[in-house]
Amino acid sequence: MENKNNHRMDPEELRTYGKKVVDWIADYLKDIDKYPVYPNLKPGDIRKQLPDSPPVSSENMDAILEDFNRIILPGITHWNHPNFHAYFSITGSAPGILGEMLSSALNVNGMLWRTSPSATELEEVVLDWLRQMLGLPSDFKGVITDCGSASNLVALSAAREAIHKRVREKGLAGRSDIPKLRLYCSDQTHSSVEKAAIVLGIGQDGVRKIRSDREYKMDIAALSAAVEEDKKDGWLPFAVVATVGTTSSTSIDPVPAIADICQREHMWLHVDAAYGGIAAIVPEMRYVINGCDRADSFVTNPHKWLFTPIDCSALYTRHADTLKQAFSLVPDYLTTSEGTVNNYMDWGVQLGRRFRSLKLWFVIRNFGVDGIITHLREHCRLAGILAGWISREKSFELLAPVPLSVVCFRFHPEGISDELKLEQINSGIIDNVNATGKAFLSHTKLHGKYTIRVAIGNLATTERHIAGLWELIKAKAAEY
Amino acid sequence: MENKNNHRMDPEELRTYGKKVVDWIADYLKDIDKYPVYPNLKPGDIRKQLPDSPPVSSENMDAILEDFNRIILPGITHWNHPNFHAYFSITGSAPGILGEMLSSALNVNGMLWRTSPSATELEEVVLDWLRQMLGLPSDFKGVITDCGSASNLVALSAAREAIHKRVREKGLAGRSDIPKLRLYCSDQTHSSVEKAAIVLGIGQDGVRKIRSDREYKMDIAALSAAVEEDKKDGWLPFAVVATVGTTSSTSIDPVPAIADICQREHMWLHVDAAYGGIAAIVPEMRYVINGCDRADSFVTNPHKWLFTPIDCSALYTRHADTLKQAFSLVPDYLTTSEGTVNNYMDWGVQLGRRFRSLKLWFVIRNFGVDGIITHLREHCRLAGILAGWISREKSFELLAPVPLSVVCFRFHPEGISDELKLEQINSGIIDNVNATGKAFLSHTKLHGKYTIRVAIGNLATTERHIAGLWELIKAKAAEY
Repeated sequence: MENKNNHRMDPEELRTYGKKVVDWIADYLKDIDKYPVYPNLKPGDIRKQLPDSPPVSSENMDAILEDFNRIILPGITHWNHPNFHAYFSITGSAPGILGEMLSSALNVNGMLWRTSPSATELEEVVLDWLRQMLGLPSDFKGVITDCGSASNLVALSAAREAIHKRVREKGLAGRSDIPKLRLYCSDQTHSSVEKAAIVLGIGQDGVRKIRSDREYKMDIAALSAAVEEDKKDGWLPFAVVATVGTTSSTSIDPVPAIADICQREHMWLHVDAAYGGIAAIVPEMRYVINGCDRADSFVTNPHKWLFTPIDCSALYTRHADTLKQAFSLVPDYLTTSEGTVNNYMDWGVQLGRRFRSLKLWFVIRNFGVDGIITHLREHCRLAGILAGWISREKSFELLAPVPLSVVCFRFHPEGISDELKLEQINSGIIDNVNATGKAFLSHTKLHGKYTIRVAIGNLATTERHIAGLWELIKAKAAEY
Repeated sequence: MENKNNHRMDPEELRTYGKKVVDWIADYLKDIDKYPVYPNLKPGDIRKQLPDSPPVSSENMDAILEDFNRIILPGITHWNHPNFHAYFSITGSAPGILGEMLSSALNVNGMLWRTSPSATELEEVVLDWLRQMLGLPSDFKGVITDCGSASNLVALSAAREAIHKRVREKGLAGRSDIPKLRLYCSDQTHSSVEKAAIVLGIGQDGVRKIRSDREYKMDIAALSAAVEEDKKDGWLPFAVVATVGTTSSTSIDPVPAIADICQREHMWLHVDAAYGGIAAIVPEMRYVINGCDRADSFVTNPHKWLFTPIDCSALYTRHADTLKQAFSLVPDYLTTSEGTVNNYMDWGVQLGRRFRSLKLWFVIRNFGVDGIITHLREHCRLAGILAGWISREKSFELLAPVPLSVVCFRFHPEGISDELKLEQINSGIIDNVNATGKAFLSHTKLHGKYTIRVAIGNLATTERHIAGLWELIKAKAAEY
């Protein structure tokens, strides 16, 4: 098959282009301050520069990389920028990138132990390391999924299985022997929990959102009352999702009290600590996961605040057997002869599984636990500094406590009390800040109040960046 | 925060180590023939070499990479090896690896258009390129998920939503207004379809497996009869999953006839073409997806047979609105102001989404459509050669047609007719081949017959590798 159409880049070309790409990456990360954080584009601006049809013949890698620089890069929102403060600020650190490079090259699928023993065993070991770093009990066993939404779905599948062993077999539809199912979370819970309920056939009506208190924590009395009321009305309460570090304000639900209720009512306790859980690595912040040792399942995302490139979510459960009971299906072509090995395909929806533990292993080793603690502490310190500046500025108000590294506030000049007017002003401030390309912010609403969020979690972010951001926000606010 | 604990690898160190890793990757791929395909290990062999606890202090990247070579590499099953023929043989090609390197460095989350316009728009464009390469209609709109199992789950969620608009809201549990739901697939369908049914609350009982014919294709008369019977028994038939390239034997279900039934019975037609669909890129093999233009949803996996590193699955649907109706949930913190943009978070379970279109773009451009066709053709040619050799060897028998690049057969010496005995012999052959480290095979069962599978799909595989494999198999068979 020697003909002009069989082009395939050989290892020597990969060596050459790989080094070019590494140079590009190093330069990019060195100069990250110089990029506009948010590209000021209109929808379609990137698309219209790309050909409508695929190329018939092989294109040279130089041309492709040039197009990457010319077309793709100007449409990137730079999550690496030290003034990216939207959603959650993250870092795909250097050791994590190196780990991803090797995972991509090895290209193994970690579905079975035998499809790469190292992938399975490293996943077990590195998740146990993380468990120890968090101070969770040794009966918590972990699996890596791609994201918190997937982890929440898998955990709630197990919770559903736990209430009735035959859901897996019989399903939920058309059954008179299973009542309507209820799961509880607060009105601050991440939308992926409701999405999981939709997928699982529990439905949005099956999710009862308990009101949050003034600090955006689940109101325990309201939870208790809701469960009582639902039982009387014929619902079957089966799970509670508590959050450690809600997406809007990073509030921390009172997990110990929720665990008491779950124990009393035989409900599954799932803790969504996707962002906040990582803080428990810091000794003086270990309290954030108080009570989580009593959870049935627990998720935290190394790709959020543990310097690991997207995607890497760590899901733990004390009931691996229930989880596997919900998911395990072994067709003939996947039976194995090693006896009792751990086949991670049994732990969730996905059969195809990237070798994600490698990057997490690289990150934990290269930073060391002390290094990780130092950086997490610094992020919280920076958030505290910003919160201090805000609280001392009369025309601004903090809208939530700052237990972790996200600051929620708004500009609230004297004399304006109309919420709609305040929303217009504050969304204008965000838009105007973002339009400068110097920083990128996102918003939320807290009990109806439009809120500016500043998330801090990038390793490149220093006090200077936070000071600059604060000056920029004040300058944009002064225009109102 | 200048202290010894704040180690963070800077861009210059990343440059140095990145180039070391690139050299490692190039050497690894150059020497891939020299590695044992399957590591002969016992469970726990890797684990016991890893420390029980994470390091307190930062470890040098050189030491980490040394441990990667010393501990991890010997436990890798080499999916890159040209004689890896288990499951599906895949290639994470050089341009794909380069794309992954850049994705990891950019570390963007493609959940919203605004979280990286390029990620969303390139995903749209490159999936439309692939659609054109497959010859599917222009109303097929795509989304990238991590794997076929996830794509099947998302597609069947949409199918469930389509039958009853209020499933999303009301769920399935405890409802007297929704009958038991049935979906149909063949007894050859991938286990992820049954897993999706479990997750969706349809249950294993809700999956009716239609018998396959002698060529392992879904029996149309049996499907028709099953639907009729189920309707009489009060089931609600809502979806059929047809497969183009089943996992066991790569059989191709009669999609046009299935589409007729789906149309008549108002059922959603989902086509799982995770592996086989890619073949439609080859003009003379376009027929494999005959009828798929009438599907409601269709999945094919570039990480299987399109030279793209794991993970990358392309899900298409003609009913993006239904799919989004099943999934879209927009909390306050994710509302955007751009008007009508495509936010891929609305297309499925996952909120966190890697920038996966980049590697697929690199692959399609660097190979060119003609290059891809040449390689796919060559894989099918190699499978044909092996099938020819097998059919001419009296003591071997082919167990299935070879429409694509997987060959199913067994050693069947004269005088042995006991299935259990044949299973022992053939599983012994596989084990003994795998123990040499020279090739890696997996098995399946076809209508009760234990089957050796040889999957071909690696770009490094040549006729010489297939010839060597065949000699090895014959040698191991001769020991019985």
